[in-house]
Amino acid sequence: MKLFVLLFALMLVSPAFAADTEANKKTVLEFYEAGLNKKDFEAASKYFGPKYIQHNPGAPDGTEGFKAFVNFLKEKFPNSHSEIKKVFADGDFVILHVHAVREPGTRGRAIVDIFRLEDGKIVEHWDVAQDIPEKMPHNNGMF
Amino acid sequence: MKLFVLLFALMLVSPAFAADTEANKKTVLEFYEAGLNKKDFEAASKYFGPKYIQHNPGAPDGTEGFKAFVNFLKEKFPNSHSEIKKVFADGDFVILHVHAVREPGTRGRAIVDIFRLEDGKIVEHWDVAQDIPEKMPHNNGMF
Repeated sequence: MKLFVLLFALMLVSPAFAADTEANKKTVLEFYEAGLNKKDFEAASKYFGPKYIQHNPGAPDGTEGFKAFVNFLKEKFPNSHSEIKKVFADGDFVILHVHAVREPGTRGRAIVDIFRLEDGKIVEHWDVAQDIPEKMPHNNGMF
Repeated sequence: MKLFVLLFALMLVSPAFAADTEANKKTVLEFYEAGLNKKDFEAASKYFGPKYIQHNPGAPDGTEGFKAFVNFLKEKFPNSHSEIKKVFADGDFVILHVHAVREPGTRGRAIVDIFRLEDGKIVEHWDVAQDIPEKMPHNNGMF
């Protein structure tokens, strides 16, 4: 009995139990691959919850906005590719550090995407994007 | 004895025990406030480990590069302010979502900073920054 109380207390204090961060990471990685790389809105859309609150300053709100973005990529940049460099999770949030290249051979952009999940589904998104410059005052790169 | 084995196993699998994420968050928040808002390099520098690997594409490498940036802010943008909107931690990493305003009254920029810590000290930094546009196709803002 004492053991159960202790285990329950540990579950309460440990973020690993409070939210299934590993499952959330997997969900976001599969969503990203389907939507951004395969450019398959239908495949990506199964990861959405009942809403998709968009904070990207160029994209319309909701899943329809994401659909329009995926179709834009498919039409204008069919060879665009997003390489995920780092994946983090904390509570209901998953954070990606991404190297996004729209035209192969170009330097592309550094992006950080932040996703919020509810019950294992994606419901909100923020991002920040920056062009990778030709020259930097160090040799460490942006990743 | 069984209990100790169980607790030890839980410590191994739980990220909450693997790295002191809450202490790392506190360290990065204090570092940010001292360096970016108070613009006090000496106060900020006590949070650095034995190295500071810089990935910001405009800043020179190392703590000297950060010192130059703090002094640049102090001289050119003494009223600049960074408001931290979200803080995440995963393992040895701390991630900040920040609204940075160089001149009060301007829209400013959205920034995500990623810090890596070793033994509780800051040793590496990446960031991505984007100007906040005047108009967006939704009312959700960038934060």
